Amino acid sequence: MLYFRNDYGAGAHPAVLDALCRTNLELTPGYGADLYCQKAADTIRTLCRCPEAAVHFLTGGTQVNKTAIGAFLRPYEAAVAAGTGHICVHESGAIEQDGHQVLRLSAPDGKLTPELLRSALSAPVNEHTTIPRLAYISNTTELGTVYHGAELRGLREACNALGLLLYCDGARLGSAMDAGGTDFPDYAAACDAFTIGGTKNGLLFGEALVIVNPALQPGFRNCMKQQGAMLAKGRLLGIQYEAVMQDGLYRKLAAHANQLAKRLASGLEALGVPLLAPAESNQVFPVLPDTAVERLRRIAEFEVERRMDESHTCIRFVTAWHTTQEEVDALLASVKELPGNAADFPCPDM
Amino acid sequence: MLYFRNDYGAGAHPAVLDALCRTNLELTPGYGADLYCQKAADTIRTLCRCPEAAVHFLTGGTQVNKTAIGAFLRPYEAAVAAGTGHICVHESGAIEQDGHQVLRLSAPDGKLTPELLRSALSAPVNEHTTIPRLAYISNTTELGTVYHGAELRGLREACNALGLLLYCDGARLGSAMDAGGTDFPDYAAACDAFTIGGTKNGLLFGEALVIVNPALQPGFRNCMKQQGAMLAKGRLLGIQYEAVMQDGLYRKLAAHANQLAKRLASGLEALGVPLLAPAESNQVFPVLPDTAVERLRRIAEFEVERRMDESHTCIRFVTAWHTTQEEVDALLASVKELPGNAADFPCPDM
Amino acid sequence: MLYFRNDYGAGAHPAVLDALCRTNLELTPGYGADLYCQKAADTIRTLCRCPEAAVHFLTGGTQVNKTAIGAFLRPYEAAVAAGTGHICVHESGAIEQDGHQVLRLSAPDGKLTPELLRSALSAPVNEHTTIPRLAYISNTTELGTVYHGAELRGLREACNALGLLLYCDGARLGSAMDAGGTDFPDYAAACDAFTIGGTKNGLLFGEALVIVNPALQPGFRNCMKQQGAMLAKGRLLGIQYEAVMQDGLYRKLAAHANQLAKRLASGLEALGVPLLAPAESNQVFPVLPDTAVERLRRIAEFEVERRMDESHTCIRFVTAWHTTQEEVDALLASVKELPGNAADFPCPDM
Amino acid sequence: MLYFRNDYGAGAHPAVLDALCRTNLELTPGYGADLYCQKAADTIRTLCRCPEAAVHFLTGGTQVNKTAIGAFLRPYEAAVAAGTGHICVHESGAIEQDGHQVLRLSAPDGKLTPELLRSALSAPVNEHTTIPRLAYISNTTELGTVYHGAELRGLREACNALGLLLYCDGARLGSAMDAGGTDFPDYAAACDAFTIGGTKNGLLFGEALVIVNPALQPGFRNCMKQQGAMLAKGRLLGIQYEAVMQDGLYRKLAAHANQLAKRLASGLEALGVPLLAPAESNQVFPVLPDTAVERLRRIAEFEVERRMDESHTCIRFVTAWHTTQEEVDALLASVKELPGNAADFPCPDM
Repeated sequence: MLYFRNDYGAGAHPAVLDALCRTNLELTPGYGADLYCQKAADTIRTLCRCPEAAVHFLTGGTQVNKTAIGAFLRPYEAAVAAGTGHICVHESGAIEQDGHQVLRLSAPDGKLTPELLRSALSAPVNEHTTIPRLAYISNTTELGTVYHGAELRGLREACNALGLLLYCDGARLGSAMDAGGTDFPDYAAACDAFTIGGTKNGLLFGEALVIVNPALQPGFRNCMKQQGAMLAKGRLLGIQYEAVMQDGLYRKLAAHANQLAKRLASGLEALGVPLLAPAESNQVFPVLPDTAVERLRRIAEFEVERRMDESHTCIRFVTAWHTTQEEVDALLASVKELPGNAADFPCPDM
Repeated sequence: MLYFRNDYGAGAHPAVLDALCRTNLELTPGYGADLYCQKAADTIRTLCRCPEAAVHFLTGGTQVNKTAIGAFLRPYEAAVAAGTGHICVHESGAIEQDGHQVLRLSAPDGKLTPELLRSALSAPVNEHTTIPRLAYISNTTELGTVYHGAELRGLREACNALGLLLYCDGARLGSAMDAGGTDFPDYAAACDAFTIGGTKNGLLFGEALVIVNPALQPGFRNCMKQQGAMLAKGRLLGIQYEAVMQDGLYRKLAAHANQLAKRLASGLEALGVPLLAPAESNQVFPVLPDTAVERLRRIAEFEVERRMDESHTCIRFVTAWHTTQEEVDALLASVKELPGNAADFPCPDM
Repeated sequence: MLYFRNDYGAGAHPAVLDALCRTNLELTPGYGADLYCQKAADTIRTLCRCPEAAVHFLTGGTQVNKTAIGAFLRPYEAAVAAGTGHICVHESGAIEQDGHQVLRLSAPDGKLTPELLRSALSAPVNEHTTIPRLAYISNTTELGTVYHGAELRGLREACNALGLLLYCDGARLGSAMDAGGTDFPDYAAACDAFTIGGTKNGLLFGEALVIVNPALQPGFRNCMKQQGAMLAKGRLLGIQYEAVMQDGLYRKLAAHANQLAKRLASGLEALGVPLLAPAESNQVFPVLPDTAVERLRRIAEFEVERRMDESHTCIRFVTAWHTTQEEVDALLASVKELPGNAADFPCPDM
Repeated sequence: MLYFRNDYGAGAHPAVLDALCRTNLELTPGYGADLYCQKAADTIRTLCRCPEAAVHFLTGGTQVNKTAIGAFLRPYEAAVAAGTGHICVHESGAIEQDGHQVLRLSAPDGKLTPELLRSALSAPVNEHTTIPRLAYISNTTELGTVYHGAELRGLREACNALGLLLYCDGARLGSAMDAGGTDFPDYAAACDAFTIGGTKNGLLFGEALVIVNPALQPGFRNCMKQQGAMLAKGRLLGIQYEAVMQDGLYRKLAAHANQLAKRLASGLEALGVPLLAPAESNQVFPVLPDTAVERLRRIAEFEVERRMDESHTCIRFVTAWHTTQEEVDALLASVKELPGNAADFPCPDM
């Protein structure tokens, strides 16, 4: 079975696992107060060219989003996000569970823009409304689209003008940097806080939170503990991050996944398969006739994104650091052999 | 200055105030454990033909919505509402503050329909999403539109099919019943819980919550207390409700307000003023050129609903139990004398 | 039946009710944005000699405690209170419902002291504990004891040294000022925020919150709205406060209640009845044989405070602005006629 | 440096790490929907002789306590715990952050008893108080004491009589079972829910939650997700639990740690060192003169439990699966060589 379900289906990259094995019997302080976490945080600060940033290591994406947004906002302040944003649809209401409204903006490509923010914040704000205070973006987005450097700078300016904090959920930040030509310092310059996702790029688990804005730094570890987000053997996070941040491994793994996604997307388009969104990063969203989707299930694992019309479905293929060119080519060969021909592929409602 | 700002600008109807004055020096148990509250609850149960309902008296609208929805839902369950709903835009995120997501549906007239609910609940629900569990409607809606009996029954059926509770925010229930031809038993039959608003229909303050569904009744007073929603001199609520529920005063006051709103709406339409929504109840939403709005400010108090385009604004006139025909006619005369003529009124973007 | 159950058993003092009646048909803006609230806030600022204070009017005691503490603290910060404090035992966990731990200190007379605070805060504080941040006192306390001026100043110094905010729940502040020889400016000088209780001193309802510390002022009305604590006809609060704050009526009503409580306490002691706590304010806590308590139930209403041993119970008599000397004397006469004699009264376990 | 700081200072037991390495490149569904989690849950159900139990795998102790208690209680319901309980002092107010009061009972040995519960619940409960609904115990306790089988059964009976759920935090359940002669079925029989701690007994991380009471099972995975407590690569938990649950490894590791703690405690007592609590499990709490404590810091890592008086401190030694007899003997030898003699050890205030 070909695996294109997601980028967290395997364990860790061998270099990461090796680092864990090598250090396994060492005895260190708990809760991230160890030298490995300290060193990984220093490495990240250096990579971000932001020596004053606070760096924290958490276990998962919902956890870090929830803990950060809950720590940054006062009770009546709201987050603003694209309606497709992870906090809107895939976190079981975790932000609201901590008391904060999330205002959903309609963004067909999953990306916030200065215009969208300005429009959303043009509604009158008063004591009866929530106060929008934090713009949430994910890079890459849930549709695989990517913010480029100029876009990040544009959002920063808009947020400054609108009195918003800018928070970037970087669950797939490696992929976003590779696809969008950005680097860590771009995020440190644009965002009040952002995450560097590990789970989807070679770690067993882990999200590094970089808090750039000094006003948001105090008390964060208390919030982590209160949210159950402080790992007892915290060094496991430091060791893994140090392993991928050295020698550019983090960037290399993401580039590999992106390259195979590009190969896959090109191959699909050559076969006449329309894509829901341009394949900029490591997620590809082909729209296929339902009959083709059913056939594909026998040879590949993937997620269904959504129904497009009565006879077409958009599915999602994800590539990862462990995906091989052979797997991509085998998948393309399978698609080629699907019944019908290119004329069946177009989805009339797109 | 003519007052059309809202229906809670005055104190209480004289009959209500008189009841408070008459009983002022009596000494009773606190927190609603008095005979007046008991009697008012009995009266409401009788009017609803629902002897098993639990009836609670709270102080305000946001308070009752927040306390009820917070008591009815498990942490990961969400409310579904029209995007114009009071809990969506006018309660400062009170529902989210208690941990619950509110899913906003686009409903141009402010009303949920079975179709809207079915469509909203067709999205896949799983462990990563919230679980929609309660449909919130307001009757009358925030746009002054009204649910009729058949609509309430249709929503009940849809909620049954979809596994939803139906909650009706009746801050203006008197007006809704008068305009829509419904009566208390219609709500007891259709809703799991609903409120009978007092603040906007002749009381100093007060929202009666009728919990019809027995599964939602246990522990509610504990939730009230925890939310700071249990008035020490609770009898003030019982006395006021008893005063308006007797002899149909509640219905009469609402009918009076509706009738004057109808007179106002007809007069405006006769002058060529377009309305944002049909004037079914006691709120009228004329769209006027900005210059006219500015002139009107000198003679009348009203709220601005929203900007329509670069030169037109939708404002809101509200009638109440204390509004007089003379005031309505004076307002119409003022509109008639506004500069320009009927040809200026139409708002091209409507 | 003699009424000594509590100080919120009647409606409003006639002067307060009269003010409400006089203004009943006026039409004003809602939610406290009216001139009455503005004027009452100014009067309170003047009385407190604190022109920079923010003054807000809320409906009830649990509501104001919950809204204030929730607004003042970050998520991991805790309140510290005497174990008998209202927020500990009589508010159904309202502070915790907003996410904050309350640390309970053992204080036999219901009063926090600098020593108690220092001792409580000597435990190590770190990322695994909550951070004590706010000292909650009630004056008068739930046991009727009173903080005097020097005690308030001592607490202020201790809070400064310990990094604590000082919050005073003044549900019975009038009684406390009369009994302890303090005045409004003492509270403005000692506290970061305090309440001036209306419900228990002649109003239909109402708690005025005075926020002295400017750092705690921003965003408070948003928090009020979110908590369902913003009364639609907010002027009702401003009108009532203005009525009692003029001409010292607030102080006079409390002095009257205190004086009758003193008469009652002296009379009881003359009859050999022991008191749980010295009767400093308007609450008296006699300890009586159970048989006597049962007999008293036929002639007076009162609350049971707690069981003292197998045959004695501590009950609570409360005097109020409407209590008369005749009622006190009638109660004393009834106690005198209770079966047995003074020798039965002492409670061996006290 | 000798390591007696805690039982989560090392990585995983080699057998656990080996299982992770062996399976590292397999591709499985995420979020615990994999066969490893399914198999580990089955193994646990079998060990508990409770085929109907729901078994969930979470990452950490605070996380599982918070998620479980938050899922099990209605908003106004409270937990009851010994004041030394982990949820009271070491979780940064995580339970309160989810809205629930924790009632702290004074229990010198860290253990709840039926008498303590009955006494705590004898206070009147009404709409103004929280409703105690869940008894929280930890086994072993934070003082290293242990509940035996009869005690668990006694608590179950008391909880039945008092209407309480019984929840056991088994962060050190292996140690508790070894020391107290209990086994998994004892917990399944006594508790509504309990955890089987992995972090402190050989796993990299992990707490298995066993929900025995069917009424508490629905919706739990939604609560996990909402709390950020659902690990993306959930199989990591299943693989680790399967590794330690097979062949009794979980029990063996705990027995090893307990045995060395016993050796350490006996040795200390032979040297005249008093212990704060009997050393029943893998934690030993010697009380030493401050000078001795300072000297010990040069040769061993340990935690300070608390100051005993002006010149004595209670410290904590923890043994773990990786502790060796040589390390224990070396520690004892170091204590023996501390300056002064046995006559200095006794702490007069104990």
